[in-house]
Amino acid sequence: MASAEIAELFRRVTLGLYVVGAADGERRDAFTAAWLTQVSFDPLLLALSVNPQNASHRLLHAGGGFTVSVLEETQQEVARHFGLSSGRDRDKLAGIAWRPGRRGAPVLRDALAWFECELAGAMPAGDHELVLGRVVDGGLLLPGARPLTYAATGDMDGSSALYPARLSA
Amino acid sequence: MASAEIAELFRRVTLGLYVVGAADGERRDAFTAAWLTQVSFDPLLLALSVNPQNASHRLLHAGGGFTVSVLEETQQEVARHFGLSSGRDRDKLAGIAWRPGRRGAPVLRDALAWFECELAGAMPAGDHELVLGRVVDGGLLLPGARPLTYAATGDMDGSSALYPARLSA
Repeated sequence: MASAEIAELFRRVTLGLYVVGAADGERRDAFTAAWLTQVSFDPLLLALSVNPQNASHRLLHAGGGFTVSVLEETQQEVARHFGLSSGRDRDKLAGIAWRPGRRGAPVLRDALAWFECELAGAMPAGDHELVLGRVVDGGLLLPGARPLTYAATGDMDGSSALYPARLSA
Repeated sequence: MASAEIAELFRRVTLGLYVVGAADGERRDAFTAAWLTQVSFDPLLLALSVNPQNASHRLLHAGGGFTVSVLEETQQEVARHFGLSSGRDRDKLAGIAWRPGRRGAPVLRDALAWFECELAGAMPAGDHELVLGRVVDGGLLLPGARPLTYAATGDMDGSSALYPARLSA
């Protein structure tokens, strides 16, 4: 299989699209994420795969938790916005309606639903880190809306270039 | 929030539906799973949350890998079938078209796509275990079909009864 075919194959792993927020004191950031799943009922845990090179990764660990805003299907532009790299001179939250969660991490006011998580574990996972978040709060804001899916965003994140040229044992 | 509301909230985490196969020598099993996501590009890793009380959990570790068959939207009955408990006197694979993967784990012939994974790590995650699988092979069988989503199966798995009565910090 060629790289593009492998990207197509992995798009069959059904995922949503989220804006994940983190904060350490007055420093806060948010980024678009798709690699998220529930992993436990008791306690209620979500697992999120985070790129350690993402500026929010350090904030997430320093703050001991993260928030998850579930995007609805009309929010592709929000996904694109928070998918941009953070920079010293760029505050991705400027002009966005948000509120601070319990630990200060941003929760988008315009979202389908939200979760607030306390960091409950972490494990290296290839070029990412898998973090576990215990869900301590959450809410469903738009019960009738449909979640944005990762597949619906096509190659917005440019990820098709990140797949290898072939699968190898 | 009441338990039913919490179940509704967690249904906004968008997930697919899969039949996961495992084998240890001639012993093999397959079960329905939804808690699966990609977690790394290099190496290509999937993370899967497995109930340690599931009969396949031991097979997965003993065999050192697992397969993932991606269900398409018309395969709700297949999801239901492999969601039943395994038993000594019940072979869930009887009457099902499947082929053995590299290590013998079953791959469904009637599926949208499939992955073959080598066990690459594991971490306790509440009442489940999170296993990492390095994708060593895979294929897209039905490029035009749509994946079955966990949300589309409603409460087929009875999971709404497994959510707590409230979220607590």
